[in-house]
Amino acid sequence: MRCAFLLSDFGTTDTYVAQMKASLLTAAETDLALIDLTHEISPGDIRSVAFHLHVVLPRLPGGSGVLAVVDPGVGTDRRAMLCLSCGCWVCGPDNGILGWLDLDEAFEIPVPPGASRTFHGRDVFAPALARAMNLGGAPPGAVRSDPGGVARLSRTLPAAFPGGIETGVASVDRFGNVILWLRRADLGSGRPVRIEAGGRMLAVVPSPEYAHAEGRLALIEGGSGYMELSVGGGRASGIVGAEPGSVVRLFLEEA
Amino acid sequence: MRCAFLLSDFGTTDTYVAQMKASLLTAAETDLALIDLTHEISPGDIRSVAFHLHVVLPRLPGGSGVLAVVDPGVGTDRRAMLCLSCGCWVCGPDNGILGWLDLDEAFEIPVPPGASRTFHGRDVFAPALARAMNLGGAPPGAVRSDPGGVARLSRTLPAAFPGGIETGVASVDRFGNVILWLRRADLGSGRPVRIEAGGRMLAVVPSPEYAHAEGRLALIEGGSGYMELSVGGGRASGIVGAEPGSVVRLFLEEA
Amino acid sequence: MRCAFLLSDFGTTDTYVAQMKASLLTAAETDLALIDLTHEISPGDIRSVAFHLHVVLPRLPGGSGVLAVVDPGVGTDRRAMLCLSCGCWVCGPDNGILGWLDLDEAFEIPVPPGASRTFHGRDVFAPALARAMNLGGAPPGAVRSDPGGVARLSRTLPAAFPGGIETGVASVDRFGNVILWLRRADLGSGRPVRIEAGGRMLAVVPSPEYAHAEGRLALIEGGSGYMELSVGGGRASGIVGAEPGSVVRLFLEEA
Repeated sequence: MRCAFLLSDFGTTDTYVAQMKASLLTAAETDLALIDLTHEISPGDIRSVAFHLHVVLPRLPGGSGVLAVVDPGVGTDRRAMLCLSCGCWVCGPDNGILGWLDLDEAFEIPVPPGASRTFHGRDVFAPALARAMNLGGAPPGAVRSDPGGVARLSRTLPAAFPGGIETGVASVDRFGNVILWLRRADLGSGRPVRIEAGGRMLAVVPSPEYAHAEGRLALIEGGSGYMELSVGGGRASGIVGAEPGSVVRLFLEEA
Repeated sequence: MRCAFLLSDFGTTDTYVAQMKASLLTAAETDLALIDLTHEISPGDIRSVAFHLHVVLPRLPGGSGVLAVVDPGVGTDRRAMLCLSCGCWVCGPDNGILGWLDLDEAFEIPVPPGASRTFHGRDVFAPALARAMNLGGAPPGAVRSDPGGVARLSRTLPAAFPGGIETGVASVDRFGNVILWLRRADLGSGRPVRIEAGGRMLAVVPSPEYAHAEGRLALIEGGSGYMELSVGGGRASGIVGAEPGSVVRLFLEEA
Repeated sequence: MRCAFLLSDFGTTDTYVAQMKASLLTAAETDLALIDLTHEISPGDIRSVAFHLHVVLPRLPGGSGVLAVVDPGVGTDRRAMLCLSCGCWVCGPDNGILGWLDLDEAFEIPVPPGASRTFHGRDVFAPALARAMNLGGAPPGAVRSDPGGVARLSRTLPAAFPGGIETGVASVDRFGNVILWLRRADLGSGRPVRIEAGGRMLAVVPSPEYAHAEGRLALIEGGSGYMELSVGGGRASGIVGAEPGSVVRLFLEEA
């Protein structure tokens, strides 16, 4: 059974997510497994959607579909897109949420007659995604587009300075772990000893996992494949004072 | 695969919803797709359930089932109902939550021996719904009842006054949009220019979608098919000071 | 279709739960129905997981799997377990969360090469559970272990004192109902008339269901099969001042 994953800022107090699911199931001609990525994105937070898609897409079963609807400009002339990335179809607005994906193909999809002006997730994106998953290709009416023309999103990637590395904060998770745009390989043989963030300088203790000494800050390789600032028994985000989009400086000691 | 949709005030911090799903799957003789409408209804809020059922039912795949359990009177003598509406089976207590549906058929269902006095969602409604979906008809033990005898719920529908229309507030969604008992057609050729709500008079700007000018109040046709009061970049509910069940007055200017 | 139930403290704001689901579906060779028990366990709250597993497992369809991941010691040397209980496979860390289950079989499972040190739910437990469900037995690499050696968790079970029964608080649910380690049969023919909890003595009114008199405290048989302290139209937990793990004293009057 094919899987459709859903990501939105709709929350779970209304029936908007279920209406998108009903639309997916109605347009699909076979059974679909429906799986929520999350619907608790802060209203309009495009950076969070882009981050989640970037991390999750490589882990989905091939042939899956992803419906990504954080769309503060719904009803305006931003484009509706259907893209192929990591062997999955992704459908959503062209407002930056696709901006950190490697796109293999891109299509602009039309707004069907009768679609609500305010609920494209249900009336535009869901049916287009279900049809692409059925057909294994773009549905009738979709117009091939240049993947390079899809809206990108800025981010601060790792850059060396004397004695360290500067990089951006990618995300903060429910546990307060601060996920950085930083791979283990970016550290080379250097051992992080201090971090500067939010105007403060903090010591970093060596630890390979979350269960480190109470109240101390460690730099750990998280499940996303990116390095995370984590505090044993606490929330790193509060201590570090960094949030998505801000920049931290890591000072390294040669190993 | 048939779909069963679930709606409750059980929240998602306990396993009550999962216990209802296990009960549905156990009673069903075929596979079921299980889809949450929402479980974040405020405890005992019958009006919200009635609104969600009214809006969502016409959009569900034919033959779907809906388990609706907001049931402050569980264990008392309120009836347990199984109804047919919009080609879907709906099962829940007769306490008003079915009060804004067009019902084609209604059955009273018995409480099976051994059922918990406090958890009819799991022990009474879920198995009855699964059996109705399997059989395509009321299960053994169900007693045909008059659809007109199912508990209704009051609401203020649109009524004209000189220069405008008065109507009730149907719901407030997660984004603070205030959904009115008002269709676009109810406005005729009139253009809304002011609204009186919560003792205040507010200007209404013309806009067809959510992405209108920051901080300004618009009247928009929402995805539910009803008109919504919405504020660009803000929460209309806070500005308008209206909540479900309260009444607003719209002043119109001829177009 | 087999069912896999998921239980964690991951919350629903990140995509961690969806990543476990993708891992389950990838490792399963057939379709799986995925059902959330809850992901709103307080971070690291082992007692809540143990309680939910204890109550829910006997109600799941036979052959189901349960992925239970509240794992403050992930990355340390706590064991990874796959157990058989109530005809279901349960997979999770050996840190006490399995401590209130009757285990028929137990296996220690290896950490596969390449697994994240911080996300065993996705990389260790989910694939092992999917394979056990497929095979109907422990997957290759699992090592049979003594069920009696699995970490247990303390709790205060009912004990008589002159005029009453003392017992522990098992859980507090979303509605503020205080669930006790107490079955109806433990009361014998005695009728509860007062309770001592949090240093206070409170009257208990007789009532068989939640819909009892406003603001009054009753002792009711809940859907879990355990007795609950409940307040009509209020939250018993606030009035009683008891929380999971604390102890209450019930004073009985012979019926």
